[in-house]
Amino acid sequence: MPVPSQAAPPTSASPLSGPALLDRIDALAAISAEDGRLSRLYLTPEHRRANDLVAGWMREAGMAVREDAVGNIVGRYEGDRPGLPALLMGSHLDTVRDAGRYDGMLGVLTGIAVVADLNARGRRLPFAVEVIGFGDEEGTRFQSTLIGSRAIAGSFDPAVLETRDAAGIRLADAMTEFGLDPAAWGTAAYRPNEVLAYAELHIEQGPVLEALGRPVGIVTAIAGATRLAVSVEGMAGHAGTVPMTLRRDALAAAAEMILAVEQLCSGQDRLVGTVGRIEASPGATNVIAGKVRFTIDLRADRDPLRLERVGAVRARLEAIADARGVAIAFETLHESPAVACHPALMAQFSAAASAEGLDAPELPSGAGHDAMAVAALTGIAMLFVRCERGISHNPAERITAADAEAGARVLARFVEHFQPANS
Amino acid sequence: MPVPSQAAPPTSASPLSGPALLDRIDALAAISAEDGRLSRLYLTPEHRRANDLVAGWMREAGMAVREDAVGNIVGRYEGDRPGLPALLMGSHLDTVRDAGRYDGMLGVLTGIAVVADLNARGRRLPFAVEVIGFGDEEGTRFQSTLIGSRAIAGSFDPAVLETRDAAGIRLADAMTEFGLDPAAWGTAAYRPNEVLAYAELHIEQGPVLEALGRPVGIVTAIAGATRLAVSVEGMAGHAGTVPMTLRRDALAAAAEMILAVEQLCSGQDRLVGTVGRIEASPGATNVIAGKVRFTIDLRADRDPLRLERVGAVRARLEAIADARGVAIAFETLHESPAVACHPALMAQFSAAASAEGLDAPELPSGAGHDAMAVAALTGIAMLFVRCERGISHNPAERITAADAEAGARVLARFVEHFQPANS
Repeated sequence: MPVPSQAAPPTSASPLSGPALLDRIDALAAISAEDGRLSRLYLTPEHRRANDLVAGWMREAGMAVREDAVGNIVGRYEGDRPGLPALLMGSHLDTVRDAGRYDGMLGVLTGIAVVADLNARGRRLPFAVEVIGFGDEEGTRFQSTLIGSRAIAGSFDPAVLETRDAAGIRLADAMTEFGLDPAAWGTAAYRPNEVLAYAELHIEQGPVLEALGRPVGIVTAIAGATRLAVSVEGMAGHAGTVPMTLRRDALAAAAEMILAVEQLCSGQDRLVGTVGRIEASPGATNVIAGKVRFTIDLRADRDPLRLERVGAVRARLEAIADARGVAIAFETLHESPAVACHPALMAQFSAAASAEGLDAPELPSGAGHDAMAVAALTGIAMLFVRCERGISHNPAERITAADAEAGARVLARFVEHFQPANS
Repeated sequence: MPVPSQAAPPTSASPLSGPALLDRIDALAAISAEDGRLSRLYLTPEHRRANDLVAGWMREAGMAVREDAVGNIVGRYEGDRPGLPALLMGSHLDTVRDAGRYDGMLGVLTGIAVVADLNARGRRLPFAVEVIGFGDEEGTRFQSTLIGSRAIAGSFDPAVLETRDAAGIRLADAMTEFGLDPAAWGTAAYRPNEVLAYAELHIEQGPVLEALGRPVGIVTAIAGATRLAVSVEGMAGHAGTVPMTLRRDALAAAAEMILAVEQLCSGQDRLVGTVGRIEASPGATNVIAGKVRFTIDLRADRDPLRLERVGAVRARLEAIADARGVAIAFETLHESPAVACHPALMAQFSAAASAEGLDAPELPSGAGHDAMAVAALTGIAMLFVRCERGISHNPAERITAADAEAGARVLARFVEHFQPANS
């Protein structure tokens, strides 16, 4: 059901305008540790400069700004009266090395733009709005992802304070150097009664919206994942002297298994299965492979589906191994449950999109996001913005100004008409 | 048709006895450049010691011994009268690194044993017999295989004289150091009218005879081989965000291709196809493979069959690539024709085996041998001896004394009843 429009349509002067958003994206992308490519890591001088720039934009949008105990930058726009619980928006300001400029940043800048638009119209809501620029989501520097969002959700693990970066610097020391008190990490956490929900706008980092011809989509869940290492052991032999009928070829067996993974993960809309890595040994042109090791990455937005498929894959691979007389062993490398988006919040995003004349399809997020951690604190929702060819974590990452604006406008409507869900 | 027995049955004192043969195998295997493992390379001090030991055994068997211009050791046992054309026997005395002790050596030692047995009985044949210990077959030192047998066949390429070993030593200089005149290489070649045929006994280096429960087999041909490098290019992508239907997964495509190679090379008795090497890039658990490179090694004892199958494999792989929307490119790495054994010589080997009470199955040789080069000079035949689990080029290479004796006895009968073929 469409939500009646109350806001004035944005003009090119509006904070929600696509070109205005992309100008800020570009200004933020100029802050990098490396010339000619974007690499901005947690608790570095570039993080400081990014926080400062974003803080300025937050103040300009009418927000009170603070930096929390782990280096997240947080802007608060009060509601009808001071101290009301807040609707949270945001994403991350750190990047991978040689990154794209939209991943994370677009969610922070659209959040600020939504508040700037409210502020420009003197509009106060029956709740506060906070925008968070998380200091670490990628885990590029300390190999521990989601530090910023875990901290605000109260699930930060203080053991991480002792991890070191590639130069041997402890996280705790890097925090001190940044001007933070590492002992105060607990103060970054919100109390549950201070927050109403968390909404994150992010580029899709996949090709689904482009394939569907839609500028925005509504995330159903952040997919759960199982990663397995599979070892297949057959018998090495001379490629010329061992007849086909006497072979126990580990690579031919692995090939059959890879096709089985593909087949068992196809035909289900919100399930994907990937074999991305393979090693055959001895790995010579004229020697039958005796051992092969490959990985399986299986993700689904519903855990029962994922677990059932993992079981089906294991059973099928064991049957293939049996039939071929090769040995097979599995090792679970990683297992994470799906994090569902809140249905009431999804419905509100859908209504906001409809009011903007957009049909926003639902899709799972195959990649991880800050929202995944924030879900431990409050109900979450995510809005995806179409990106070119699904390319991300790459300087070729690209979105259009029109899509940035579409996303910002849907987010603005979502905020202005936000109804706390009974989460 | 069985050949009537004329020789006295060998006793344990006979040069043809299994234990006697394996004693000499062990004595030869003790000559190595490395302690505790067998590595004996062309034109090294170990080659000199091996030639000297073998020359002594040849003299003891009643042969006149010479070392030819490329370092092959050659023993000649005259026939009824001096200067008759010769039946050649032999194999190689060089090894790979960390080699087995039977590969090559068994053919030289059984040849000497056959002559020793004739000599012990004062038996002269209506042709001469020569036994050759080739100095280089494996190509371990100079990366050029079959130097010894190419030289005697007149197909030695003098450009090889300029190749260098890992230490930078030119082959020509190594020959001088060994006591040879590199300019004299042409004198190693036989004139065609000096030879009648070439017979080589060799371990199978494959598991066929073991699987059939037969001690010896008769080689039909040394298989021809085609080696291809195949490049598959799809599109890399995030393992979580790209739905199965939007993928162009280079590794899934390669898996289907590997199975196709296996299937197209199965069901034909004397054809094998192997994918032994594969690389997927970027090669990460959570990234769909964008590029895969693998090799195909396809061998058959008949060239038309091999070429037809190579064509069928290429066509099927192109169809798979088309259907999956990935690009495919082929590069031919190697192409060698099959070398057929002479049917009349095969029949004589078969008769000799029957006379020994053995049913010797026919089988192709998937590996290369000196006989391959000698085929440029004269008709060839090969007798394979069963080896344990088909293992070769490995210290675990093993045969039984009984099988060594069976091979030697069949070879002895073959020689004693040899009829020159009209080649």
